[in-house]
Amino acid sequence: MKVLVLGAGQLAQMMYLASAPLGVEVMAVDVKDNKIVNPLSKSPYAIDLEFAISDANAITAEFEHIPEKLLALVNDSGKFFPNVNSILAGADRVREKQLLDACKVANCQYRIISKLDDLQNITADLGERIIFKASRDGYDGYGQWRMKSEQDLESLSQIFEQLDLQGVPLVAERMADFTREISVIGARDNNGNIACFDIAENLHHEGQLHLSIAPATKLLSDTIEQAQSIFTTIAEALDYTGILAVELFEMPNGSLLVNEIAPRVHNSGHWTQQGSDTCQFEQHIRAVLGFPLGSVQRQKVTAMVNIIGCTSFSRDLISIPGCHLHWYGKSLREKRKMGHINVVADSYQDLASKLAQLSQYLPSEYFPLLATQAEKLELLEEN
Amino acid sequence: MKVLVLGAGQLAQMMYLASAPLGVEVMAVDVKDNKIVNPLSKSPYAIDLEFAISDANAITAEFEHIPEKLLALVNDSGKFFPNVNSILAGADRVREKQLLDACKVANCQYRIISKLDDLQNITADLGERIIFKASRDGYDGYGQWRMKSEQDLESLSQIFEQLDLQGVPLVAERMADFTREISVIGARDNNGNIACFDIAENLHHEGQLHLSIAPATKLLSDTIEQAQSIFTTIAEALDYTGILAVELFEMPNGSLLVNEIAPRVHNSGHWTQQGSDTCQFEQHIRAVLGFPLGSVQRQKVTAMVNIIGCTSFSRDLISIPGCHLHWYGKSLREKRKMGHINVVADSYQDLASKLAQLSQYLPSEYFPLLATQAEKLELLEEN
Repeated sequence: MKVLVLGAGQLAQMMYLASAPLGVEVMAVDVKDNKIVNPLSKSPYAIDLEFAISDANAITAEFEHIPEKLLALVNDSGKFFPNVNSILAGADRVREKQLLDACKVANCQYRIISKLDDLQNITADLGERIIFKASRDGYDGYGQWRMKSEQDLESLSQIFEQLDLQGVPLVAERMADFTREISVIGARDNNGNIACFDIAENLHHEGQLHLSIAPATKLLSDTIEQAQSIFTTIAEALDYTGILAVELFEMPNGSLLVNEIAPRVHNSGHWTQQGSDTCQFEQHIRAVLGFPLGSVQRQKVTAMVNIIGCTSFSRDLISIPGCHLHWYGKSLREKRKMGHINVVADSYQDLASKLAQLSQYLPSEYFPLLATQAEKLELLEEN
Repeated sequence: MKVLVLGAGQLAQMMYLASAPLGVEVMAVDVKDNKIVNPLSKSPYAIDLEFAISDANAITAEFEHIPEKLLALVNDSGKFFPNVNSILAGADRVREKQLLDACKVANCQYRIISKLDDLQNITADLGERIIFKASRDGYDGYGQWRMKSEQDLESLSQIFEQLDLQGVPLVAERMADFTREISVIGARDNNGNIACFDIAENLHHEGQLHLSIAPATKLLSDTIEQAQSIFTTIAEALDYTGILAVELFEMPNGSLLVNEIAPRVHNSGHWTQQGSDTCQFEQHIRAVLGFPLGSVQRQKVTAMVNIIGCTSFSRDLISIPGCHLHWYGKSLREKRKMGHINVVADSYQDLASKLAQLSQYLPSEYFPLLATQAEKLELLEEN
C-alpha cells in the first residue's frame, strides 16, 4: 500500500517511519516543485506527480497551506483525506470561524476585518485587548498583531492599511484570559469511529510550542468530556477521516474555547510516539487507508520537548532512561523546529526528575521553560 | 552519522527504522553483489562498497555468514563492530564450542566430527540421542541431523561420507533433555558497560522460532543471575560491542546450558520494539556508534509472534489493542520469515486473551503454537 503526503517535512517523515512496519510506503510531494521525494532522505523518486497520484492508495497532507491547484488535483483523484473542506478550514481562519459557529462550538469572540472601516467600535465588541490574525498563511505567530489598549489602534490601522484586507481578511479576536492551553487530538475512520488520545497541556514561548505534557495535569473528567465532545462535533461536521487536532483554551470557570484546529498530525501529539499504544502518525495512515484504528491507550506519563533553533547540545541526553530523541535532519535556522525529545515516566514526580536531568544537557536560552516546568511538576501532588 | 550494515534483510531494515529518529542513517550491503542499498526500499545507492566503508562512522552486520573477503575488508577499516572473532564464533560451531569451553560456560556435551572415524564409540560419550550440526552455514535447522538410537548411526554415516567433513566438520551434541529454551539478549558498549533485556522464553516448531514471550514465565531470580552471568562472561571474552544474543537451555535442575550464540540483533529480541524502553535495534546502533546505551526497562508483558511462510491473513488484526505488525515486505517462500507481530499486555492473563484474539485472525497451520500457548498462559498463576 502507498500513501502520498503533500509536504515533505518532519511530519511526512514521521508518518513514513511509523507506517513502514505495516508494509505501507509513504512518499512525499515537495510542494515547492511538485517533485516526489523520499520523506526521510528527501531524495527524489523518478516518478512525476501525476503518476504518484494514480499509484497511491490514499493521499493526505502534512500541512494545510497547500497550493490551490495541487489541492484541486488531489481532490479529483477521489483518494484525498481528510478532505478539501477540512484543509481549507485549517488554512483559513474565516472559514474556521464559520465552521465553529455553524457547529455551535465555543470559540474566542471575534470580528472579521476585511476593510479598515470594520475596525470601528471594535473595542465595544471585543474589549481593548485584541489579537489580529491574518486569515491565511499564518504560522507560529507570523501574521499576528496584538493590541493591548485602544491607543494601539491607530498604529495598527496604519499597518493594516498596507495589507490586502479584502483578499486576506483579518480575524480580530478578544484576547481570552485562559488558564492554559490544552489540545485534544484524535482520529476518525471512514466508518465514523472516533478515538481520541489523552489530552495534552501545551506550553508556549514567543508564539511557539515548547513543551507538551500528557495527560495534562489536574484534568477534570468534565474537561475531558467537553474536549472530546468538541472534537466529535467538529470531526463529524467535517466528515473527517484521519488525525485532527483541536487546540483549546481552558478558562478559569472550566469552560473550553477552541483556539484553532489543525487538519493533520500535530506537534502537540508527538508524545504519542512513546506514550500511546498507537502513535498519531501510524493512526493517521491507518485512517486514510481504511485500516482499523489502533488502541490509543496511554502507556505512561509523557512530555514532549521541542528543540527549536538549536543544534549544539550533547546527544548523551539519550542516556536518561525514558528519553527518546527525534531528530528531523534539517539545516539550522532561527526558530526552526529541529527535532523533539519524548520523555516517558512512571509519574509526574518521575517526569519532573527526568526533565530536570534533561535540562542539564540543554542550553536554557533555547529551552526557557524546561527547568521551571520540572520544578512545577515536582511540586504537583500526585492523585 | 552513518552506519553500514552487512546484509540487507529485515534486521538491517529494522535498524534503519529504529535509528532514523536519532539522526543516524543506516545503509546496507547486499552481500550477493556488494551493492549498497536502502535497507527498507532495497533501492541501490550510487556509491560503491569502498566509498560506503570509508564514509561510514561504524560498520556492523545483520548476520554471521559473511563472505571472508568482505569480512577482512571491513575489518581493515577499524570501524567494524562487534569484531571479527565474534562473527566467526557465531558462524562456526567449532569456534563457538572452543569459546564456550575457554570461558568455562556450560554447554551441551559434544564431539567434533572431522572424519568418519570420529564417530567411533560416540554413544559411549554422548548417549544414543545425538544431534549432528554442520559447523558452518547452518541456519534454522538446515544442515542438522538427528540420531534417535544407535541403529541410525549406519545410515547417518552414509550421509556424512558424502560431506566434506575435514573442510566443514560436524559438531555432534548430546541431545539435552531441557525444560525449555530461553534467551538472554543484551548490549555491551565500548566502555564495557552491559545492559541485558529481560529474558525471553522461545517456542519453536520444526526448527524455527514461532513465539517469544518476555519475560519468560516462572523465571527464578537465580536463573536470571545465571543467564546474565553467562552473557557477561561471553561478551567480555569476546571484547564485544553491540547486541549479543545467547540461546540457553533451561534444564530440569535449574541449570543453564548455552545452545548457541548470535553476534547480532536476534529474532527472540524483536519484542523489545514495543516491550522495552530502548529496542534492540536502536541499542545496537547506539553501541556501535559509541553512544550511551539506552534504558532496557521493560514496559509490559510482551509476546512476539513470527509470521512464517504466510501472507494470507486479515491485516485487521491490528485492531487488537497492543498488537503491532512488523511486515518485512519480502516475497513469499515456504518457511520464510515474512514479518512478526508484537503483542503487549498488562499481565500474562491479558496476553493470553490477546493471543487468543490474534489466533482468530491467523491460519492455525502457519501458527500451530498460538492457540495452545494462549491457553497455557491463561492457566498461569500471576505472581
